[in-house]
Amino acid sequence: MFKTRLLVSALALVGSMSVAYAWESLPTEAPAPSDNPTTAEKVSLGQMLYHDPRLSSTGTVSCSSCHNTMLGGEDNRPNSMGVNGQTGGRSAPTVWNSAFNKVQFWDGRAASLEEQAAGPVTNPIEMGMKSWDDVVARLKTIEGYQQAFEKAFGKDSISKETATKAIAAYERTLITPNSPYDNYVAGDKAALTAQQVRGMEKIGELGCTACHSGPAFNGPGMFQKFPVIPNAYFEAQYHFKKDKGLAEVSKNPADENLWKVPTLRNIALTAPYFHNGSVKTLDQAVMIMGQAQLGKELAKEEIADIVAFLNALTGEFPKQAMPALPGTPGKSFN
Amino acid sequence: MFKTRLLVSALALVGSMSVAYAWESLPTEAPAPSDNPTTAEKVSLGQMLYHDPRLSSTGTVSCSSCHNTMLGGEDNRPNSMGVNGQTGGRSAPTVWNSAFNKVQFWDGRAASLEEQAAGPVTNPIEMGMKSWDDVVARLKTIEGYQQAFEKAFGKDSISKETATKAIAAYERTLITPNSPYDNYVAGDKAALTAQQVRGMEKIGELGCTACHSGPAFNGPGMFQKFPVIPNAYFEAQYHFKKDKGLAEVSKNPADENLWKVPTLRNIALTAPYFHNGSVKTLDQAVMIMGQAQLGKELAKEEIADIVAFLNALTGEFPKQAMPALPGTPGKSFN
Repeated sequence: MFKTRLLVSALALVGSMSVAYAWESLPTEAPAPSDNPTTAEKVSLGQMLYHDPRLSSTGTVSCSSCHNTMLGGEDNRPNSMGVNGQTGGRSAPTVWNSAFNKVQFWDGRAASLEEQAAGPVTNPIEMGMKSWDDVVARLKTIEGYQQAFEKAFGKDSISKETATKAIAAYERTLITPNSPYDNYVAGDKAALTAQQVRGMEKIGELGCTACHSGPAFNGPGMFQKFPVIPNAYFEAQYHFKKDKGLAEVSKNPADENLWKVPTLRNIALTAPYFHNGSVKTLDQAVMIMGQAQLGKELAKEEIADIVAFLNALTGEFPKQAMPALPGTPGKSFN
Repeated sequence: MFKTRLLVSALALVGSMSVAYAWESLPTEAPAPSDNPTTAEKVSLGQMLYHDPRLSSTGTVSCSSCHNTMLGGEDNRPNSMGVNGQTGGRSAPTVWNSAFNKVQFWDGRAASLEEQAAGPVTNPIEMGMKSWDDVVARLKTIEGYQQAFEKAFGKDSISKETATKAIAAYERTLITPNSPYDNYVAGDKAALTAQQVRGMEKIGELGCTACHSGPAFNGPGMFQKFPVIPNAYFEAQYHFKKDKGLAEVSKNPADENLWKVPTLRNIALTAPYFHNGSVKTLDQAVMIMGQAQLGKELAKEEIADIVAFLNALTGEFPKQAMPALPGTPGKSFN
């Protein structure tokens, strides 16, 4: 997604960018912040917490309910369904490779995975817990968690800080390397079809990679405006501008309709598309990006080539063991 | 749970039963019906279907949402939450060892796991699909399912029958052997504490095992009345008789308040208790069973001994790989 200024410079650079663009493959490990080094014990605890519906008021919604690790890291719904069937206005971003996002949430309001993990748990329409104090109190009643936190963080360590650190540590392992694209970049020229190579060249030529750059196709900038180019037809149909994005948080009119640049990794698996999940198919999303961001009406063949390439960004999902969540023998959790 | 007639005979037999009762350990394999022999391909497909929220109208509720294989095989809620936050009147029975139930559902209205699996998917307050035709149509749009069904059942085999057969085949693998009780029965006399042995002897003496008999403590009869002995205090508090059980299905007054005898396996992990999930703790449930079924006010120490024994029925949960659910590249599932 482009700010107008970026759009202009990107378009001006089209010729040279398509040649010079350095295609990068996905790292197999994500860097951890110095105050939360990744350990096996934290990852194991984080995986349990991530999949535990008892982190919600009703005991029915876990992180994985909306960011499903058995699927493309989200729920394939326009918006997610939280406790008591409530829905919000935004589409769940994928958890896969979220370690490579520079900021978290669609509006980028969290600077880290740790900070992000704290949010949905106490959001009244998501997991609906009244407070993190309540979450901590509930976790403390579960002996298996007392033990798992002790292994990860030391004795009597259950807290909002440690719980979110564990979840973030787990999320840093949710990386999907070895996509056909990565294999191609690593030298296996047979990994992409001719059509996929055309699509790859096309997104370089068009300048899509000015925003969707880097190994996760989500950099270098944190925020971009979407849509850049006013389009009454799209607006009537998809209501893209209704949600003000970053401005909803900052209350700064300059931030209106600014969004975190979302990763293109596994994008084929994360329909429906855009911040409000209003667009059902990937080819429609590519068509819209062409018009709304580049001011270009892409040809049907161009769209097909780009979609073929985007399908080559579906990576290898790491095999995970199903976590066994610790019980509360003889009583229910609340 | 006792019919009055059984109650009387059980009480009469107390002395001899406690000696003669043959304690059985849990089989590590469940028998499969001749028209649905268990195969690895079916189990793998069934595990995917079981955990796939796209088998619900909203894409938010899978079998595992209410019968959670990461927990005690259910949701630790009084009643479960289906699509759009709807709730029913009954508490989800555990899926663990459900292969050893003679009938399925609390009211026993399904004769097999295959038959049971078909129910919740199209129940409007559970998974909310309009029809199995809709489920089949949706599954057919998912290429990975086409392949998985082909492996399990042959080409172009997606149907209600094959889907429910696969789910049942998976459920037949959800067995939790090697509980402390099983190890004790197998000869390891140190596997139970002295208190647990007292509790075990007590449930034999009291005659609990007349209904909760066999390896899964859920036989030999299919149905028993609960409560047997009228108790206005319990009724005011827990409303046990409001739900007519089997009679809700059969419309036969003779079936009023008849229920499938539930397994005691892993019962410590399946609070809250009874068909309507109205009783929060296991010691309270044991106290109520004493009064409502046996007409006995159990001493505090007796209850504690029995609860200690019931905790020894928590088995070993098989390690499972997390299924990777097949996607619908470039589009959402509905």
